[in-house]
Amino acid sequence: MTIFVCVSCRGQGEGEGGSGLALVNALRDKFAAASAEGVAVKPVECLAVCKRPATVAMVGAGKWTYLVGDLTAADHLDEIVEAALSYQRSENGIVPWKERPASFRKGVVARIPPLGFEIQEQQTT
Amino acid sequence: MTIFVCVSCRGQGEGEGGSGLALVNALRDKFAAASAEGVAVKPVECLAVCKRPATVAMVGAGKWTYLVGDLTAADHLDEIVEAALSYQRSENGIVPWKERPASFRKGVVARIPPLGFEIQEQQTT
Repeated sequence: MTIFVCVSCRGQGEGEGGSGLALVNALRDKFAAASAEGVAVKPVECLAVCKRPATVAMVGAGKWTYLVGDLTAADHLDEIVEAALSYQRSENGIVPWKERPASFRKGVVARIPPLGFEIQEQQTT
Repeated sequence: MTIFVCVSCRGQGEGEGGSGLALVNALRDKFAAASAEGVAVKPVECLAVCKRPATVAMVGAGKWTYLVGDLTAADHLDEIVEAALSYQRSENGIVPWKERPASFRKGVVARIPPLGFEIQEQQTT
């Protein structure tokens, strides 16, 4: 799976890199420390969700994409890692509500089905 | 390419189907009338962009995904068709600004790069 992190997102008081770039670096350190395999953290110049910095997108082959905003390296690092590992374990990208950290329950900006999705599948928001 | 249309989105004065479902049906008629090939219009139960109905997502293999809100069958049918055909023609899903209808310039909720994207690529918002 890939976590795209918007590095156009700027936060306050998080160093010269802005909140998005700080998040990329901090997440890479976290996943390396956790020896998490198959999780790529990639910067992207703009996700066009400019009102809710920093925004990340969780993307995986054949899975729903989730966009989550209002995240900072200072406050949400562990929750992002936890949510990413749940996403990775999930069959279709839809993480059960009880497994979602608080910031992910509040921060969902949008979700998009995988290409090839048909509405007959079972869904929960 | 696929246009996912959120059928949980409800509009006002657009019949019993709500604005999302009305949009699905109207778009299918439009694309059929235009003999457009390779464009699938698919309903999806929720895109989680509940404040900007109706919302659609344009998705294509290897392309950026674009989420656009504030669309109605009554007002934006031709613009959605126009934008979809531009998206289909585009190499990477990024439609040049001058080709974007007014509703797409104003309505972008988010965009997500294709899986495998690396930031070195040329980008415009």
